[in-house]
Amino acid sequence: MAEHTVTFDVTEKAVAVPTGTLLTEAARLADVALNQPCGGQGRCGRCAVQVTAGTVRRRSTLRLSAEDVAQGYALACQSVVEEDVAIHVPPQEQLERRLTTDRTAAEVTIPAGYDPLTAQPIRRLYLTLTPPSMDDQTDDWNRLQRALRQDGGIESPQISLALLRKMGRILRQDDWRVTAVLHTEPTPSPILIDLLPGHVDVPLHGLAIDIGTTTVTVWLVNLLTGQVLAQASEYNRQIQRGEDVISRIIYASKNGGSNEMQELVLSSINTLIERVCQKSAVANRQSSVVKATITGNSTMIHLLLGIPAESIRLSPFVTAVNQPPTLTAAEIGLDIHPAALIDCIPGVASYVGADISAGVLSSSMDDSDITSLFMDVGTNGEIVLGSHDWLVTCACSAGPAFEGAGVLDGMRATRGAIEEIWINNDTYEPAYRVIGEVKPRGLCGSGLISLLAEMFLTGIVDKGGNVNLTLPTTRTRLGEHGPEYVIAWGSETQSGKDIVITRVDIDNLLRAKAAIYAGFSVLATSIGFPLEAIERVLIGGSFGKYINVEKAVQIGLLPDLPWEQFHFLGNTSVLGAYLALIDQQARARIADIAGRMTYVELSADNSFYEAFTSALFLPHTDLHRFPSVAAALAQESS
Amino acid sequence: MAEHTVTFDVTEKAVAVPTGTLLTEAARLADVALNQPCGGQGRCGRCAVQVTAGTVRRRSTLRLSAEDVAQGYALACQSVVEEDVAIHVPPQEQLERRLTTDRTAAEVTIPAGYDPLTAQPIRRLYLTLTPPSMDDQTDDWNRLQRALRQDGGIESPQISLALLRKMGRILRQDDWRVTAVLHTEPTPSPILIDLLPGHVDVPLHGLAIDIGTTTVTVWLVNLLTGQVLAQASEYNRQIQRGEDVISRIIYASKNGGSNEMQELVLSSINTLIERVCQKSAVANRQSSVVKATITGNSTMIHLLLGIPAESIRLSPFVTAVNQPPTLTAAEIGLDIHPAALIDCIPGVASYVGADISAGVLSSSMDDSDITSLFMDVGTNGEIVLGSHDWLVTCACSAGPAFEGAGVLDGMRATRGAIEEIWINNDTYEPAYRVIGEVKPRGLCGSGLISLLAEMFLTGIVDKGGNVNLTLPTTRTRLGEHGPEYVIAWGSETQSGKDIVITRVDIDNLLRAKAAIYAGFSVLATSIGFPLEAIERVLIGGSFGKYINVEKAVQIGLLPDLPWEQFHFLGNTSVLGAYLALIDQQARARIADIAGRMTYVELSADNSFYEAFTSALFLPHTDLHRFPSVAAALAQESS
Repeated sequence: MAEHTVTFDVTEKAVAVPTGTLLTEAARLADVALNQPCGGQGRCGRCAVQVTAGTVRRRSTLRLSAEDVAQGYALACQSVVEEDVAIHVPPQEQLERRLTTDRTAAEVTIPAGYDPLTAQPIRRLYLTLTPPSMDDQTDDWNRLQRALRQDGGIESPQISLALLRKMGRILRQDDWRVTAVLHTEPTPSPILIDLLPGHVDVPLHGLAIDIGTTTVTVWLVNLLTGQVLAQASEYNRQIQRGEDVISRIIYASKNGGSNEMQELVLSSINTLIERVCQKSAVANRQSSVVKATITGNSTMIHLLLGIPAESIRLSPFVTAVNQPPTLTAAEIGLDIHPAALIDCIPGVASYVGADISAGVLSSSMDDSDITSLFMDVGTNGEIVLGSHDWLVTCACSAGPAFEGAGVLDGMRATRGAIEEIWINNDTYEPAYRVIGEVKPRGLCGSGLISLLAEMFLTGIVDKGGNVNLTLPTTRTRLGEHGPEYVIAWGSETQSGKDIVITRVDIDNLLRAKAAIYAGFSVLATSIGFPLEAIERVLIGGSFGKYINVEKAVQIGLLPDLPWEQFHFLGNTSVLGAYLALIDQQARARIADIAGRMTYVELSADNSFYEAFTSALFLPHTDLHRFPSVAAALAQESS
Repeated sequence: MAEHTVTFDVTEKAVAVPTGTLLTEAARLADVALNQPCGGQGRCGRCAVQVTAGTVRRRSTLRLSAEDVAQGYALACQSVVEEDVAIHVPPQEQLERRLTTDRTAAEVTIPAGYDPLTAQPIRRLYLTLTPPSMDDQTDDWNRLQRALRQDGGIESPQISLALLRKMGRILRQDDWRVTAVLHTEPTPSPILIDLLPGHVDVPLHGLAIDIGTTTVTVWLVNLLTGQVLAQASEYNRQIQRGEDVISRIIYASKNGGSNEMQELVLSSINTLIERVCQKSAVANRQSSVVKATITGNSTMIHLLLGIPAESIRLSPFVTAVNQPPTLTAAEIGLDIHPAALIDCIPGVASYVGADISAGVLSSSMDDSDITSLFMDVGTNGEIVLGSHDWLVTCACSAGPAFEGAGVLDGMRATRGAIEEIWINNDTYEPAYRVIGEVKPRGLCGSGLISLLAEMFLTGIVDKGGNVNLTLPTTRTRLGEHGPEYVIAWGSETQSGKDIVITRVDIDNLLRAKAAIYAGFSVLATSIGFPLEAIERVLIGGSFGKYINVEKAVQIGLLPDLPWEQFHFLGNTSVLGAYLALIDQQARARIADIAGRMTYVELSADNSFYEAFTSALFLPHTDLHRFPSVAAALAQESS
């Protein structure tokens, strides 16, 4: 097949590719980083490049204007090479480090009464072996096993070939005195992770790792005490290849995509590992970090392990594996002790992953007589309802509206995002708070909830989300995209353009909140449990942490329950991983939680669509479900 | 440090090495194969090369004449690079394929009453899974486990990351019908080796591999029937880096030596695997060969696995590991299914290895009421004495005399070796038989035993091994190396030189046979068991197969027992590996044998030296121990 040369202006490297190669593939081969938030589906238009010499065949020009095309612009993920071409790559959108990262790094205290000696399965044993002699020619490995049995009560340990190869030298280096690092599980065959010459006070570290679709978080833990030494988060570098799990699955299913996804998330994790080790002056992570407990949604875990995730996306939506076997750092590519054990927390279903099992553990709802509703709201809303006696769970595909996607001026909760809004009942003039106290750039999830509630209570929108254009204010108007409300005039904003919310945006937000409300109400109905009998609402995830509950209730996202019944738990996923890392009983409890959570598939439930439709209003078709909102409306209008 | 260029005339490749590099190391870097039978100790002189430009610093010139040195010859393993040099590499001695190889390939019959369904731990299961649906969203791995449990009674199987990565695709390829290949041990966690789409009559093969110091043997086995499909042997390619285990350990302990030893034996094994698969038309060994059972002496197993073997050589002579863990083919580099299980048979001590455990199993002496003496005579003589009730074992360092080393005209049992000799009692003229029926080149082990017995019975040597120079024959004479006897005149030989046995050779042979005789007699004495009470002598190893028992008794190598009590078993090591491969009870029995054999360290036994000294005569100081020899002597002299 004919080969053509593709030259990118951002790199010296030209690549030769056969006819029919996608520009995104050519870019990958040339090491040119192109953002592909939709995973190469041709939906987002963010991978547009300019063809400056030669032409490409465009399969789709969605989101490109006729003028763009005339200027040579093409969607890299939809354009095919057929001759030699030169490509100009516009500056790629850079991920700005999230301000909230530091805000979410809460102080973590060791659980009360925690005793590492009984709880921690990693053990450090000082052994003194009887040296071999002509009267005792036992081989080294049996000699070591004898000492492990006598001094540590360890029976039938497992040893790797790598450790067998260096064992003899280590045993002899300090006259048959060694320090053994073991993981006492699984029984009956505990794992010998490392062996060091002499009796050394060697530090032992572990990692709790939470792989979020958006954010990866790593905690460094002293395994000898249980103490969290450092925390760090950053964007999951897979974002440039898809913003949501579906886009990433699609990208990963393409040629080379799976490897790239794996490398991207590994580079995120390894960078964070380096950072937490530097923060804590951990000099040699390749020897001291001997275990990692990993959590995340099912797609994130599959992509990390290089396991195809396609079946998660396609009906009937099953994972390849909910409980991966214990692996080693070398097997998956973590930059710590190569023999470090990698414990992936078990998940429940395609859209109720390890992050939820870990979240339930850290919420303690599984250990309580009180019936709790646990919610982790992000791109998907995962919901668990139950108590000590029973647990049911479901996932609702809320879409990424609360993460700022699908909303004209939506953005993530970073510097410049409006996160809280108040609207004057008389003048319809807004006041707002911006993250980082800079000029606003857009609206993040908590800002959107706040905005929608205020607009509803002040009558700017009605219960159907229709913008009232007859109000005595220039803030409501008929814009390019239909009716809209202006939150900030161009003179106040970073871009110089007005920040608005449109009728289309409002519809997207209504659909997202309706999916979540319908989710937990159908879940409760499915087991005959009345919503109002919920005694506690536990909200996990960093997003949840900044929701104004009152406003979330006012738009009908959360059930109308008394204030004091809501609890914000922050990143329950990484907290659960931490607890599982330091305490084998907590780890066993997570397995138990994952095993006994009954998963309810909403798309198979006939009542879901009806519940969803009823929830597409502010706050709901049935205002009786929201007595506090009814009271507030009465007060406003009085 | 300064670098110098070393050029070898046998390759275009020049290498740059720092000052002080050994020529052998430079040769290794230049991919030049240099024989080093002594492992680079400077003892054998076989790595001599000629320096044709520049000079090297010679640490030793042992075995080089002054003339050799004047002509630029140097021992590569003892010469150091200090400037640019050019090296002429003389043609390297080629290993000629042993004729005996084909002779030792005995017909192997499946044990009577063998039932693969109960005996073979490898199982092929046909599974039909219920496809996932919205009502049953169980993940793939749990779905597969459910089918394994229901259709195969398999609980808690282990799966590798590699298999997890392709599992989903395989399950769906033929509509949730798959063929699973499992190893039902260890309990309680059997190993899932492979998964294939559809219900396929896939062949399953295994290998029994015996790594001898000299010869590597591979048997290909149909695991579904137990049948041996093909056998092949060849020299262990490590021979070029040391003829005996000690030389190899020394070589392996040098820089890069361990890797090289591993590569050499792997190339031997992989070549044989290819050969047996070709013989049996096994098309895809990377998928059908799913297990290998490996035996060999302790040094061979350590070198194969890349585990340092130094401690085997040094007092108190302990191995790193007598029972390696189960490994995979990918881990050690065998060219079969990457997930194939590698089962290394357990050994007992540094010089009583897996070959002896396997040998005892295949001899069945451990399962008999009869007390047997089992001997495997090669470079080392390994001896086991016992029965169903008890087993004791020892190793005696006989040295390689019976393999033709340390004997002026000694050679291995290949084409041109004199393997049997008869001497006329009146004329002292010999008659002999040569392997391959060609002109003789030298004397192999069985020929040496035969020769020594004949010389003794005809009075050419006395009981002390002294050559009688006063006999009326030109065959005895005072040669360059002292008194000698001429077996073949130069006119009859390949080289044109006389083939002789010297007084020095005879001393070496006496020491070798005395070590073995002293070995089993001290072993018997150590447990108070009289030698004459031995009911059966079992001789293993391909060497043993060609010994003339009568003559071996006459020189005092074997105990003087009735003819019918001797049994020649051939390669008991590979036979034991084969039995362990096809029968899990046989495998368990080997572990039991290795566990209950009591090892007696001869060098720690005070009576050994006395027994050795008494045995340095023909047949022994105490002729009463050899009544049949006393009778033969009486007859000859009558």
